[in-house]
Amino acid sequence: MSAPLLSCSRRLRRTPFSRRVEAAGIKAYTVYNHMLLPTSFDKPGTDYFHLKEHVQVWDVACERQVELKGPDALKLAQMMTPRSLAGLTEGKCLYTPVVDENGGMLNDPVTLKVGDDRYWMSIADSDVMLLAKGLAAGAGLDAEVFEPDVSPLAVQGPKADELAARVFGDAVRDIRFFGYARLPFEDTNFVVARSGYSAQGGFEIYVEDGRYGEAVWDALFAAGGDLNVRAGYPNTIERIEAGLLSYGNDMTIEDTPYECSLGKYVHLDKAVECIGIEALRRHAERGHSREIRGLRIDGEPLPGATEAWAVSAGGKAVGHVSSAAWSPSRECTVALAMMNASHWTPGSEVEVDTPEGPRGAEVSALPFSEA
Amino acid sequence: MSAPLLSCSRRLRRTPFSRRVEAAGIKAYTVYNHMLLPTSFDKPGTDYFHLKEHVQVWDVACERQVELKGPDALKLAQMMTPRSLAGLTEGKCLYTPVVDENGGMLNDPVTLKVGDDRYWMSIADSDVMLLAKGLAAGAGLDAEVFEPDVSPLAVQGPKADELAARVFGDAVRDIRFFGYARLPFEDTNFVVARSGYSAQGGFEIYVEDGRYGEAVWDALFAAGGDLNVRAGYPNTIERIEAGLLSYGNDMTIEDTPYECSLGKYVHLDKAVECIGIEALRRHAERGHSREIRGLRIDGEPLPGATEAWAVSAGGKAVGHVSSAAWSPSRECTVALAMMNASHWTPGSEVEVDTPEGPRGAEVSALPFSEA
Repeated sequence: MSAPLLSCSRRLRRTPFSRRVEAAGIKAYTVYNHMLLPTSFDKPGTDYFHLKEHVQVWDVACERQVELKGPDALKLAQMMTPRSLAGLTEGKCLYTPVVDENGGMLNDPVTLKVGDDRYWMSIADSDVMLLAKGLAAGAGLDAEVFEPDVSPLAVQGPKADELAARVFGDAVRDIRFFGYARLPFEDTNFVVARSGYSAQGGFEIYVEDGRYGEAVWDALFAAGGDLNVRAGYPNTIERIEAGLLSYGNDMTIEDTPYECSLGKYVHLDKAVECIGIEALRRHAERGHSREIRGLRIDGEPLPGATEAWAVSAGGKAVGHVSSAAWSPSRECTVALAMMNASHWTPGSEVEVDTPEGPRGAEVSALPFSEA
Repeated sequence: MSAPLLSCSRRLRRTPFSRRVEAAGIKAYTVYNHMLLPTSFDKPGTDYFHLKEHVQVWDVACERQVELKGPDALKLAQMMTPRSLAGLTEGKCLYTPVVDENGGMLNDPVTLKVGDDRYWMSIADSDVMLLAKGLAAGAGLDAEVFEPDVSPLAVQGPKADELAARVFGDAVRDIRFFGYARLPFEDTNFVVARSGYSAQGGFEIYVEDGRYGEAVWDALFAAGGDLNVRAGYPNTIERIEAGLLSYGNDMTIEDTPYECSLGKYVHLDKAVECIGIEALRRHAERGHSREIRGLRIDGEPLPGATEAWAVSAGGKAVGHVSSAAWSPSRECTVALAMMNASHWTPGSEVEVDTPEGPRGAEVSALPFSEA
């Protein structure tokens, strides 16, 4: 079926940038952390090529922050992730899978230390704040847990450095990958991190105090006219090609970090006091028998996957597709799939049960190689 | 602006009834607990009058269950709600506000005891499972926490008893309000509760094992042809008139149960070991100075509220509208609003800052009196 309409209500929160997004001609949204996330301004291929050639501004306010504050804030953060936070200092961002007591994925935030005993977890689509509140109350920790008024705005694309430098100064050029600096804007300053949900490079501006939202947006567009700056959004085609996973699509509570190719973020050796660490130790000993891979699916363009598509070989189930999109540069449908060990080797030939019938497909390493 | 499109993906989970909902001509959805919730089949007024005159089947699978299982399951449930669970026995449903350590609303589930040391919390739109996992892990409780394969299907409207009796037998007629029975269906049985998000009466069928979803749907439609059964959804107009609150719209973490007129569910006197009980004790001592009321807003039909609308009197802020809908039976816009004590008395005259300009309004008790 074609895309249905979205009924909006206060529960699907607007963002500090929503009026600008509407003025830019938004066509469709998804809902993420109880908030509107843009998904379409122009044709998918047009938005995609523009991202790869120019620079886009993305309303990703839905990457809500969970602030942990107080003497036990670090301990609380560490209870949620199996990645050691021992080396986390101000100015750094850390990708931190969050797991439950069984080692199942609950979220995959980026964690920032933003002050003494103050951390932000910049979350994917699940209420990490409730997990943190439960842990803090259950364990009697001395840490406040709340959602601060912080709304990320991403600047992504090959011209992102130039655009960000025009608004925040040349200091942005010195920010390392997954590093951040506090940079001035009007009478305030923002955390500006070199990060974002694309492989094109760029920044995420953590806009603190929503009243500055439209001013930041406007400053970027005023500065970027000759750079062909446009409104964009986390691009499904580009992020699949880049092998960037989406929580809720490609990873769920049914999957361990190992199965999501995130084993390198599990520090079993470092006495990490995470609620899932014992379970992950058992998973590590046992080994895992499925893992996320890319798929190139044959034939005409397919719609996105709105539920898992079964993957088989010789009539036997060997995995499922979790995300899919037609790639206009590769002229095939690219997909992410959880694949059994028997068929996770790149080059394996499989069959995908798509809404438009069975299709042949070939397993690919991630990220996909250049088109 | 008119309703935007919704971009679907696996992350916005389909339900066991989605194919039937599509076949019934679904026009729009909202997203609730990371799942699709229908919001429109016909014109709003048509769907509304049909609900009040006949019987509807609602896909409310998005009312996910959080199962608590094990020796400490009851203790864990009690940590989340200030309502005493001491009297909760099998066969009963209990409306249980869930609060955080500050007494702020986190959810308002219905809690069912479904077996020895087994509870379901049938949740509104926030990840209560993560709160429960955090509390259990933090406090070292002996309780499993998970989302079982249970998808509620509601049967609502004045003919709901007749329709449910035709499918589940006359035993449904004996189920008391907020009581449930386990009733047979094919080779299994379901929890069938006399509950639901309307004032028209009816049932919620907790369909356990999604593979039965389409069979239950089909049985209801096959049995209800002469009852004019149709596909419906939680109806915003009707639920506002009935004073039924919506978490995320009318209640948020910023509000206490007292402010949401839910004080009767806070049992300060019963030694309830809820994480918010100390905070609620302080709130009770201090008293509260705002509370939810109805508003009748003058003039032409207004769109729904997609963000809070300021309410003022004599130029001073006195509240905000959280939900609004045009009532075709009352021929005015009905709304729910958090009102300051100075203007919470029914009959108070106020002004609402709507997207279509300022409008006069009159405060009403809840539920609204009959049209």
